[in-house]
Parts: sequence; structure tokens; C-alpha cells
Amino acid sequence: MADKLTPRGEDFSKWYNEIVQRAELADYSPVRGSMVIRPYGYSLWEAVHDGLDRRFKATGHQNAYFPLFIPMSFLQKEKEHVEGFSPELAVVTIAGGEQLEEPLVVRPTSETIIGYMYAQWIKSYRDLPVLINCWNNVVRWELRTRLFLRTAEFLWQEGHTAHATQQEAEEETQRMLGVYADFARNDAAIPVIPGRKSESEKFAGAVRSYTIEAMMGDKKALQSGTSHFLGQNFAKAFEIKYLDKNNELQYVWTTSWGLSTRMIGGIIMVHGDDQGLRLPPKMAPIQVVIVPIFKTDAERARVMPVVEQMRELLAGSVRVKVDDREETPGFKFNDWEMRGVPVRMEVGPKDVDKGSVVLARRDIPGREGKAFVPQAGIADAVRELLAKIQSNMLKQATEFRDANTREPRTCDEFKAAVDDGFARAWWCGDKQCEAEIKEDTKATTRCIPLEQPGGSGKCILCGKPASEIAIFAKAY
Amino acid sequence: MADKLTPRGEDFSKWYNEIVQRAELADYSPVRGSMVIRPYGYSLWEAVHDGLDRRFKATGHQNAYFPLFIPMSFLQKEKEHVEGFSPELAVVTIAGGEQLEEPLVVRPTSETIIGYMYAQWIKSYRDLPVLINCWNNVVRWELRTRLFLRTAEFLWQEGHTAHATQQEAEEETQRMLGVYADFARNDAAIPVIPGRKSESEKFAGAVRSYTIEAMMGDKKALQSGTSHFLGQNFAKAFEIKYLDKNNELQYVWTTSWGLSTRMIGGIIMVHGDDQGLRLPPKMAPIQVVIVPIFKTDAERARVMPVVEQMRELLAGSVRVKVDDREETPGFKFNDWEMRGVPVRMEVGPKDVDKGSVVLARRDIPGREGKAFVPQAGIADAVRELLAKIQSNMLKQATEFRDANTREPRTCDEFKAAVDDGFARAWWCGDKQCEAEIKEDTKATTRCIPLEQPGGSGKCILCGKPASEIAIFAKAY
Repeated sequence: MADKLTPRGEDFSKWYNEIVQRAELADYSPVRGSMVIRPYGYSLWEAVHDGLDRRFKATGHQNAYFPLFIPMSFLQKEKEHVEGFSPELAVVTIAGGEQLEEPLVVRPTSETIIGYMYAQWIKSYRDLPVLINCWNNVVRWELRTRLFLRTAEFLWQEGHTAHATQQEAEEETQRMLGVYADFARNDAAIPVIPGRKSESEKFAGAVRSYTIEAMMGDKKALQSGTSHFLGQNFAKAFEIKYLDKNNELQYVWTTSWGLSTRMIGGIIMVHGDDQGLRLPPKMAPIQVVIVPIFKTDAERARVMPVVEQMRELLAGSVRVKVDDREETPGFKFNDWEMRGVPVRMEVGPKDVDKGSVVLARRDIPGREGKAFVPQAGIADAVRELLAKIQSNMLKQATEFRDANTREPRTCDEFKAAVDDGFARAWWCGDKQCEAEIKEDTKATTRCIPLEQPGGSGKCILCGKPASEIAIFAKAY
Repeated sequence: MADKLTPRGEDFSKWYNEIVQRAELADYSPVRGSMVIRPYGYSLWEAVHDGLDRRFKATGHQNAYFPLFIPMSFLQKEKEHVEGFSPELAVVTIAGGEQLEEPLVVRPTSETIIGYMYAQWIKSYRDLPVLINCWNNVVRWELRTRLFLRTAEFLWQEGHTAHATQQEAEEETQRMLGVYADFARNDAAIPVIPGRKSESEKFAGAVRSYTIEAMMGDKKALQSGTSHFLGQNFAKAFEIKYLDKNNELQYVWTTSWGLSTRMIGGIIMVHGDDQGLRLPPKMAPIQVVIVPIFKTDAERARVMPVVEQMRELLAGSVRVKVDDREETPGFKFNDWEMRGVPVRMEVGPKDVDKGSVVLARRDIPGREGKAFVPQAGIADAVRELLAKIQSNMLKQATEFRDANTREPRTCDEFKAAVDDGFARAWWCGDKQCEAEIKEDTKATTRCIPLEQPGGSGKCILCGKPASEIAIFAKAY
């Protein structure tokens, strides 16, 4: 643990891998492309789960569970869907010692099997809307994998809703994009840009896909959650129909939306620094770590009762841990910085004398982030500090993103911009034009932001009239 | 919905299937043996999750996630383990469009892959104990399936721990059995018998298996959760070793323990009656349903404000729902009885006049279970009533089990006992003897209860000396 992390500026990718291993977030598994999520990393996933699940339920959704295995024939019912997913499928051909008549696909996503079930359950307009979410695992056989960011198996949630009208389904698609953006900003302290995906980047089977895009510490983009308006594509493929108020059969309108363990990769890459992970307080499994400081047994006897008292005062409202390992304070400081704990409390003999403790902020390094705080009223002081850290981390990430987002006016400026950040530019929306940009610069259209300046301009590449601004960047 | 349920006494199995469908707990899926867990059923699983997860964390466990796919060769490393599971495996042979070199097994349980990872993580006695739990899905290809009770895929938790000494591992095995028993009794209101499995009934690869056994409404037994002392079997198969304090390499001792969606089947079969489901308040997704009663618009205008006031008073501490559908009160009463909601509140014009409401208990049918309760202080009254229902349901289930448990002294008495309930009898522990009992009576040894009367007796079948009492029953 004495070894320093590879600095981000030297090799961002190496820095990322080291942090994931050293903070014990995840590990490689013996199965190619599959990851093991270790307890500290899984606690982050539990925080994502809790933050989203609360928001899903507040917007009227219920959880359910659908089977892992999907008959191959189901995937083939929606043409674009099967084309999009078939190269990535894992297929069960043997079960119970026998060759299966029809191979079973391990779900890469569940639109098809859920569509099949909705067709059984939905009879009349009274049954609508159906607002269901699932927490589960999916498999997409990827060639190049990266812990959290791209793995053959990952954990996620997939929401699947059915509505009587197009308008309701479109509103739902936007509502859930809003839920993701709210979670990302307010819990994960990640300033995301909500927007529409281009035609070529949308989900296989969707009419329109929406995304939240975030800038990582290396200035590349990460698609962090998506919400899809599926129109009647799956309703028609699976015959999901209802009797409307006039007793006429109508196809439903459906949506789907998902956010995965990839979000944890985003949290690492947005907030981490050369000392390690930095966790926003709302996501941190441990919000405050207390490090006792003493040299002699006599000092120990004076320090530890105060440490225990502080722990008790905090335990009701804060996730607190005492580090009583037999290691040096220096080792412990480094270790908890690596793990991104937002606040370190130091209690030494002098603090005991003065009736105070030291609080050190993870978001502000060195002396500037340290303060002596009275022991009396410590719980309120810590809660306030955590709230400050939470908002400061969002501010830091927002400033970093904005400082690295440019509005190029020429092709050369555009190339320079996407080489080192985000470019915001007028875009004609043409597929061919998009492909050329990708070919030239390795940058892709990340999204067409929901917030548009209005008016019109000329496409940054081809110069044709453009009515929308797009965000371009290299991406994970 | 007007159709009555098949009475339990007429066809218990049919009654069970009807209840699962009509209460919208689960549904058959198009994939043989796989089930869809519908929102109401999934809420029950969330209650199981929350009740157990809290207890796991309070006993020092952390959650983690291990891969769904396990290399076939891993399973073969522990001889008994592979023999036990190989007939039930689902196998992925194709992924990403190519035939895999080594087939991947869809996990039926995770001892092997977790053992492999523990061997990487555990170096010294300082790394022990490792106390990890996983919430996930597993696949065991079963021929005869039944919603919740036996499905090809099911949801569960699997705990996997590693310890420095045999004693610690044995204590952990018992501790987690205790956690299951505590959850079953105090949350699910199921009086379980904790005990040891016989040699022939133990988990494939375990040294000793423990179980909690419950009596269902048809007097058959359901194994509802198991905890296994694995000795050093998996430590040796996967080379999980640590340096002890004397700097010598030692194998660790491991345990595993699991409880699944099967528990939901148990809740249905222990508590359900001819009107439908009956849910213990701690498990109920909806604890109180409020049914407004009115005939005219004028009555409606008087009733609804009180209904809303009651809902608000309860919402802080109770899971409450107002049923404002356009259906008759009678339809609603039947519907919520079917769904097992513990308390129904009726609010009609007369109740408004009297400043009271009607509370009807699901655990006590008819007039006896109904009471007029003042609107003032309703939240306290309802909380008290829910606590009463919770303990009464445990009492009812315990009385039923005890009334149907016999202590036969002859072979004939034994046969009569297991034909219609549980038999508690001295047993020699011999495999052959156990097999003969099964052959003769279709009853199996459910467990050797942890609580023993002491002393000794003669085996109920073979008459040989016996030092332990066993529970025998037909089982799911």
C-alpha cells in the first residue's frame, strides 16, 4: 500500500485500474469479461440502488422479476432489436444433461420477454399504465472489457412501462431521464447533460433514445443512463393490445430505461484524484472515519474514550467507522484517502485537552481542508460539513466540465476541442456527416442536449443548415 | 374474481396455484420452469430481503457480487459437489457468436467461484474472518416445477464465510441458522424447527447441514432455509490457505447458507385460508387498506375527507392504501382478503357521524374480527392491532403445527402420524433405515432438532439404540 498510484496525468487508464483494485472495489474473475464486485464496491451499488429505487417508487413504479432465459425466437420478433444484440449473446444449449430443442439466450435486456408477459396481462385501458422496474443481471458478450465500464455480465435496473397513448409514453421517457439526471447530480455529484441520442446511436428497437452524458477526469464522455421511447415497435412485435374506452383494440405504447454498475465507473473517473477515490457523502459507505492518535498507553487511555464518544454521537445520523487497527496514523490517512472517505476525524491527546477534534475534508487537500472543531455539537458540525462537501464536489466537477467544453466555430477548432474535451456545435443531424466526424476525430455525437439555445446555424462539418446543437466527444 | 377459490381441504395444490395467480404473486413464463415474479409477489421478496439483510449486517456481514457463469472445471474440483449438482446444470456453450472452448455453467450455487476468489484474497490470519453475502439468481434445471417452491431459476441469498478455526466456522453456521429462525418466526410468523439434516439429506459438499423446517397448511414440511458447515472441503479443493500467527500455512474453514424465494411459497401455505392469502403485518406490502363506503354523491362528499384524513394519519408509520376504484365494497372486501392485507378499514357515513371507523382483521374472520375504533388516535390503535395480528398469526401457526405433530411409539402409529402431519421419534441415524422409511411411507427425515429431550431410546423403525429424536414428514 506504500506504493503511490500512477498519476492520472501520466496514464489515466492505469490509474483507474489501480484504484479499482486498491480500494477493493472489484476484481477480475476467472471467467473472461466477468467481474467480481467486492464489498466496498457493492456498497456503492447499494447506494445507487437505494437512491434510484426511492425515486422510482415515488414516481409510481413497482419492482418485479422476469426470467434470465429468453427463447431465441423472442429476440427475432423485433428486427432491429435482434440485429443490435445478436453479436453479443450468450446462449444456453444444454440443460439438465440434455440438448435443448430451442436454445435459450441469457438476457441482454428484457424488452422481449416482458413484452410477451404484458400481452397476457394487459386487457383494457383500466390495466394501464403498467409501470414496472427490475433489478437484475444481464449478459452482453463484449470483447474488450474494463471493470465496471464494460463487462460481459453487469448489474443494472431496467424499467419497462406500457401506456395508452403516445403522449403518456413520451412523458414517461422524459420523466425517467429526469430521475437519472436528478440522481446523478444530487446523489453522485455528477453534472450530467440530458439529451437525445442521434439516430445511429439509439437503442436497437427504439424510436428515440435519451441519455445522460458525463465528462470523466480525462475529459472523455461516459453515457451514464438511458431512457427509450419504443413507440409501438414492441407492442406490434408481441401483440400488446388493450380495449380502449370505445371498446376498440389498440396497441399500447412502451418505454424502457436502464442504469447500470457502469455508474460506479463514472463516480470513480469523475471524482478520483492522484491520492485515490473521492466519494460524494451521499454515496459513501463510510462517511466519516475516526483515526485515534497516540504514542503511549497513557495517551491511548485518554484518547480512546473520546473516540468512542464521538462515534456514538455520530452513529445515529452518519455512517461512521473507527479505525483501531495496529497501523500508523500515516498509513491510515493514506488508506482512507485511497478509499475516498469524505471526512477524516483525528483525535489525539491535544484534542482531548482542548475539547476539540480535527476534521479533514477529502475534497480539499492539505491544510486548507483541515479544521479544529469543538467536540460539543459534533454531530451537527459533521452533518453540515458533509452537505458542504456534497455540493462542493458537484461544483468542482461542473467547473471542470465547463472549463473543458468548447464552442468551436471552425473544423480545426472542432478537432482541437474533441481532442481535449467536449465540443458543443451546430450539427445537421445527417448520418453520413456523423460517420465522417467519427472517422476523422474518433469523437461521436454524445447527445443533442434537451436544452437548446434556439435559432439555427451551420453544421460544424458540412456547413449545411442545422437547427440543433450537439455535444461531441470521445467516449467510453 | 367472483369465483371462489378451490377450498384447501378439497385440493391443496390447486388452491395454492389459484392463490398465486389470483393474488398476482407470480406467473408462468414461456421458458419451461422459469417464473415471473409479479409486483405484489416481488414486494414480499423485498420484505424478505430487508428483514434478512438487516440481520446479516447486524451480524457483521457485507454484500458482494460474484459472476453468474462458472467454468465447468471449477465444479469438478469438489467431488460430492459436482455429483450433487451436475444433473441440474444449465450450460452456456455459445457466446459472442462462437463456440466456447470451455463450457460455462450458469451458477446453481457459488461455493466454487467464491472459493477461487477467496484463495486470491486471503493471505494471513488478519484477513479472517471473511463474512460475505450475495443476493442473486441461480439456476437448477428441475423437471417438476411449482411457482416459488421449485423453479428452474430462483432468487435467493447465499452467504459464504471463511474462518481461521473450525470452532468459529461451526459457530457461524449456527448463528446464521439462528438468524433464519428469528426472521421466520418474528417477521414471517412461521414457527420453524431448527435442526441438523441427516447424512443423506445434506448439501453436496458439506460436512454438516442445518435447516429450518416448517409445517404447511396441508401438514407437509417445507425446508425453508439451510446453513452448511463445509469444513475444509472447499478450502482444500481451491487451496484457500492463510498464514497463522506462527507463520504457518493453514487451510481455512468455510460455511455457506441460503434462503430463497421458496420462503414466499411457505408464507402462502402456512397462513393462507379458503378466502385467500393472509400476510403477517411485517411482510405485508399493504398493511391497511381503506375502503370508502357510500351510495350517493352527498355521502361520498362526507366520507372521502375522513378517508383522506385517516390515510394521512397512518401514512407516516404504516403501509396504507386507499381503494378508490369504481367497484362495490363487497368486491373490494373479497379482493383484499384474497391479497391477504392484514387490516381493512371501512369508512361510511355512519362512521363519519360517530367519529369512528371499522377495523376488520384478516386473521380473525367474521364479526369477531371487527371493531369500531375512534378516529382520534387511529395511528396508535392500528399499530397496536398490527402487532396483535403479527403475534396471533404465529400463535395460530404454532398451534396448528403442534396439534399435528405426534410422538408415535409403534411402527403403525408412525405411519399414521406421517400420513397426516409430523412425527417426532427416536431414530438410529442409519442410512438404510432412513431409506426404508422413505420407501414405506414417502416420509423423509426433515431434521434432527437442535433441541433434544436428552437420554436415549429405540429407533422407531429398526428398534436399534438411538440417541437422538428426529422429525419425519412428507415434504415439498
